[in-house]
Amino acid sequence: MRLSIAGAGAVGRSVAQLAGDYGHTVTAIADSRSAAIDPDGLDTDAVLERKDSEGVVGTADPEDALTAEYDVLVEATPTTLGDAQPGFGYLERALQRDRHVVLANKGPVAERYGEVMALAEDSAGEIRFEATVGGAIPVLSTIEDYGPATITAARGVLNGTANFILSRMAAEGLQYEHVLAEAQDLGVAEADPSFDVEGTDAALKCVILANVLAEDDREYTLEDATVEGIDAIPPSALELAREDGRTIRLIGEVAGGEIRVGPRLVPEHSDLAVTGTTNIVRLETEHAGRLNLSGRGAGGPETATAILADAGRLSRLDP
Amino acid sequence: MRLSIAGAGAVGRSVAQLAGDYGHTVTAIADSRSAAIDPDGLDTDAVLERKDSEGVVGTADPEDALTAEYDVLVEATPTTLGDAQPGFGYLERALQRDRHVVLANKGPVAERYGEVMALAEDSAGEIRFEATVGGAIPVLSTIEDYGPATITAARGVLNGTANFILSRMAAEGLQYEHVLAEAQDLGVAEADPSFDVEGTDAALKCVILANVLAEDDREYTLEDATVEGIDAIPPSALELAREDGRTIRLIGEVAGGEIRVGPRLVPEHSDLAVTGTTNIVRLETEHAGRLNLSGRGAGGPETATAILADAGRLSRLDP
Repeated sequence: MRLSIAGAGAVGRSVAQLAGDYGHTVTAIADSRSAAIDPDGLDTDAVLERKDSEGVVGTADPEDALTAEYDVLVEATPTTLGDAQPGFGYLERALQRDRHVVLANKGPVAERYGEVMALAEDSAGEIRFEATVGGAIPVLSTIEDYGPATITAARGVLNGTANFILSRMAAEGLQYEHVLAEAQDLGVAEADPSFDVEGTDAALKCVILANVLAEDDREYTLEDATVEGIDAIPPSALELAREDGRTIRLIGEVAGGEIRVGPRLVPEHSDLAVTGTTNIVRLETEHAGRLNLSGRGAGGPETATAILADAGRLSRLDP
Repeated sequence: MRLSIAGAGAVGRSVAQLAGDYGHTVTAIADSRSAAIDPDGLDTDAVLERKDSEGVVGTADPEDALTAEYDVLVEATPTTLGDAQPGFGYLERALQRDRHVVLANKGPVAERYGEVMALAEDSAGEIRFEATVGGAIPVLSTIEDYGPATITAARGVLNGTANFILSRMAAEGLQYEHVLAEAQDLGVAEADPSFDVEGTDAALKCVILANVLAEDDREYTLEDATVEGIDAIPPSALELAREDGRTIRLIGEVAGGEIRVGPRLVPEHSDLAVTGTTNIVRLETEHAGRLNLSGRGAGGPETATAILADAGRLSRLDP
């Protein structure tokens, strides 16, 4: 497939780097200020070197990436809430052109799911968004294959930053602020970590899961989630938990029409007690009991893997 | 899709029971002595009641299930080795009729993989076989989506019977023979358990994984696997392991072109130290680190889930 990549951050860059390994061609890539276009396929190494040295991918208008020749728009601009713009507008234009869309941007499917699905319905193109939930972990494709109606609940650790902090606090008995600083040094937490530590990121992923599981019955947005973060957990709480053979993790849960994110006690050696930045999603199914899927929930190459898997599925649809 | 089901054991029966929930119609089902056929869709409840009370599904010739009107042949006859007959013949006829095939029977893709792929290549129909490895766990579809070339190793617990026995021995300090008898009482082990406890079942699944991962580069059969079972492990070995923070599990491994099944020491709380009849497959990927997929590896409804997921994928291919 020919890919146009909107967004040249860690994810967009990794997609550009790996697309060739998966048999795809990058015909356009845009950052916030520029675009590089080549209907015969860009020299992605050269484009990314330019981005490194000059701060821009090319000399074209970013707009040109949307009007370029492509089969799949990879929407990897930063997640925005509410109206989910400009990402929503980009995917809208692609679908109106009967092109496919692969989303890494959570905003549109967390905040305007019904509208996105309606656009896809009216389009010859399809939309896929594996990368929006659990990074490299094949959560949404598993739900799709097994049938959303047969999945009765989804529960898991969906934010690597928060999990890293809690598992380090548990392992070392350290204060939250100390481990947060460590996480920031390692690049595991952002300078402004609130999106991760307040539970918003995990909540968006749970909202997307809830939308997928509900199919057409009901639509959810971030407002439907009950969210509590990890910034008020003292080391004593973790110590108390350990004495009882438990630990604390930031758990997201979609069950019975409710969406909840918050710190939960889990058995110390539970599958849910993943360590470091690992994510895990546990699906309860109607006929096959429990399925656990765990792996890396974030990172450029990891997220690109999910995007390119979606592109592969789209390529196998086309006659 | 219209399904013709070859085999009316636990798996075939479950497919017949659940097909309707997934939007499919069963137009034929055969056991070893009979068949029931209805191009407009069988009353599967009635057919299965007949099987319960009379021991046969219908009054037609089993052969008729192969010549019936159907889109997908579900091949769920017992796994056979070597020439993999009669299962191989059934799938051959379906593909020669340009029909799709969904396999639960491991024989053809473990012992005659190249021939099966060649038949599928020449057919308008496709073949899928998720149910042959890890039951309900979406192993093969995950490998397919991420690209076999990007999976560098696969390792896991692929036989529930052997795992149940070892995890019970570890938990209770009991002798192998005692726990085997318990497993047989529970229906977790067969009267003749050799296929499971000698490692053959796990080895077949690893051979299938090796074939999928190698793509066209190399073809494997059961003879290529180095296999050791669990029947010579004394409780003292598990005790010694525990003192070192480890336990023993029957681990199958596909890596570096080699296929090995045998008892291995694993850390006590490792993801691989699953308990009971749970299965787990750990995939090492080139760009996304490690993926762990665990769940129920066997059982009628569980295996049917994988078969019906494959049928769903096939239905989404058809224009």
